[in-house]
Amino acid sequence: MIGASLARDFKRLGLAEAVAGFGRSKERLMQVVKEGVLDDWAVEPEPICAGADLVVLATPVETFVTLARDVAPFLMPGALVIDVGSLKGAVVADVEALMPEGVHFVGCHPIAGSERSGAYASRAGLFEHARCMITPTERTDPGALARAEALWTALGCRVERMDAYEHDRVFGLVSHFAHMAAYAIVTTVGEADAGALRFPGAGFRDTTRIALSDPTLWSHICIMNRENLADALGRCMDVFGRMKDALEAGDSSQLEQIFERAVEFKRTSER
Amino acid sequence: MIGASLARDFKRLGLAEAVAGFGRSKERLMQVVKEGVLDDWAVEPEPICAGADLVVLATPVETFVTLARDVAPFLMPGALVIDVGSLKGAVVADVEALMPEGVHFVGCHPIAGSERSGAYASRAGLFEHARCMITPTERTDPGALARAEALWTALGCRVERMDAYEHDRVFGLVSHFAHMAAYAIVTTVGEADAGALRFPGAGFRDTTRIALSDPTLWSHICIMNRENLADALGRCMDVFGRMKDALEAGDSSQLEQIFERAVEFKRTSER
Repeated sequence: MIGASLARDFKRLGLAEAVAGFGRSKERLMQVVKEGVLDDWAVEPEPICAGADLVVLATPVETFVTLARDVAPFLMPGALVIDVGSLKGAVVADVEALMPEGVHFVGCHPIAGSERSGAYASRAGLFEHARCMITPTERTDPGALARAEALWTALGCRVERMDAYEHDRVFGLVSHFAHMAAYAIVTTVGEADAGALRFPGAGFRDTTRIALSDPTLWSHICIMNRENLADALGRCMDVFGRMKDALEAGDSSQLEQIFERAVEFKRTSER
Repeated sequence: MIGASLARDFKRLGLAEAVAGFGRSKERLMQVVKEGVLDDWAVEPEPICAGADLVVLATPVETFVTLARDVAPFLMPGALVIDVGSLKGAVVADVEALMPEGVHFVGCHPIAGSERSGAYASRAGLFEHARCMITPTERTDPGALARAEALWTALGCRVERMDAYEHDRVFGLVSHFAHMAAYAIVTTVGEADAGALRFPGAGFRDTTRIALSDPTLWSHICIMNRENLADALGRCMDVFGRMKDALEAGDSSQLEQIFERAVEFKRTSER
C-alpha cells in the first residue's frame, strides 16, 4: 500500500522521470503497471536498482535487512535509499551498515496507512498532511537527509526528526500497542460471547477498527519491538487492575477520577 | 443529546403534536426552545407529564429510578413511558414497579450517540439505521410494547428484543468495556510517556475516540454494570497476558495466531 501509493504520487506530482518496482508477485506488479502506477517492473532487484537515484524499501519491516543485502550490489553511487517502515532502532543501524560506498540511507516512517494492505489499497495523496518521522543517525549524510526531507515535504508531509530508538518507544505506544489493544478487545468480547459481536455500536467499531490489520505484518512488528510492547502491556494491565479495584469496591468517584485523567490525556493528544 | 435528538425527530417526522421537556437547567431548556426543538419546558415534572401520551426518560441512567418516582404521580392513565438508557437489568424492573395503574413502561436502548453529550450535540436523524434494543419483561403490556416498537421503527431504527439482563451482559462487552478499554489505552500511553500522545496516527485516534466520553456518565454506567465489567477486564488482562508471553518468548507465530483469531472475531462483527 505504501509503496504503490508513493509511486502514484511520484507520477502525479512529477517527482520522478520514471518509477519502477520490484517484488515477489509478477501478477501484482503487472496489475499496477496496467493501472499506470509503475513504468517498469521486475522480480529481481538488478534491473530496477541499477541506475535508480532513489530506492524505497517498502516491504514488511522484518525483511529490510535481507532486502538491503540483496539490493546493495546494484546500487548506483550517489543513490539515496529510504525505507517506510514503522520500526527504526536496530533496523536503521543494520541497513545503514549494508550500504556500499557513496550510497546513503535515511530511515523514514510516514504516519499514513490504514488497516488495509497491498497495492490494491494504495491511493494518490495518501501522504498529504501526514506526519513523516525521519530518524537520522550519527552516520547519516547531511545531503541525503536534506533530500529525504525535501521528498516527504513535496509529498505533503510534515517532517519531524527523532532518534531511531526513541521512535520505536513512542510508536510502540501510540501505534503498535494500540494495535495489540484493539486485537485484545475483540478477542475479549469474542471469547466471552461471540454472539455479542453482532451488536457493535459506533464506539466499538472505531475502537476495534485496526483489529482488522494484517496479523502477519503486525506480529513481526510487535516481536521486533517486543521490549517496548511487553512494557506497555504490563502498564495497561496495571491500569485495568486499578479500574477493576474501583469496580469491585463499587467506588464510582474513584472510577470517575481514572476516567477523567484518561480524558485529559486524550485531549492532549488531540491538540 | 438523545433526548433533544428525539425531540428534533418527533417534530421533523410529525410524530407528535407537541414536544415538551423538563430538566434541571433552565438555560439549556430555553436554548433548545429557541431553536424550535421544544414547544414548552419546565424545571418540574408536573406541567410536562400531565397530559403527555409519551414520556421519555433521557437523563443519565443512574437517575432513572428517582426520576420515575418523581414523574409517577403526574402520569396520565394510558401513557407510555420509555427510557433510552444503556443499562437495562435491574433498572427496568425498578422503574416498571414504580408505574401507576394504567401506565406502561417499556425499556429501550437506541444504539446511537457519540463521545459527545448534551442538547448541543443533538441532531435530527440520529436514529436512522441505528439498532434499538427493546427489553420487555413478563410484566410488559403487549400494546405498549407494540407502540414502543412502532415509534422506534418510525424513527428509522431496526428494533430488536432482548432480555434486560442479557442486554447488560452483551452491551457490557461491546459498549461499556470498550469505553473502559479506550480510557485504559490513553492512560497507559499517557503514564508511560505523555509526550508520545503528540504522535497519534489514524489508528490511535480511532481506537481512543471514545476516551473523550463523559467520565461522570460512564463511571456511573460502569459501576451499575460492575459485575459484567469486572469479568470483561479480567478476561482482557488474560488476553494481554498471553500476548505478553508470546512477546517475551519472541514467538512471532504464537503472536500471529492470537492476532489472526482477533481478526476473525472482528470480521464476524462487521458482517
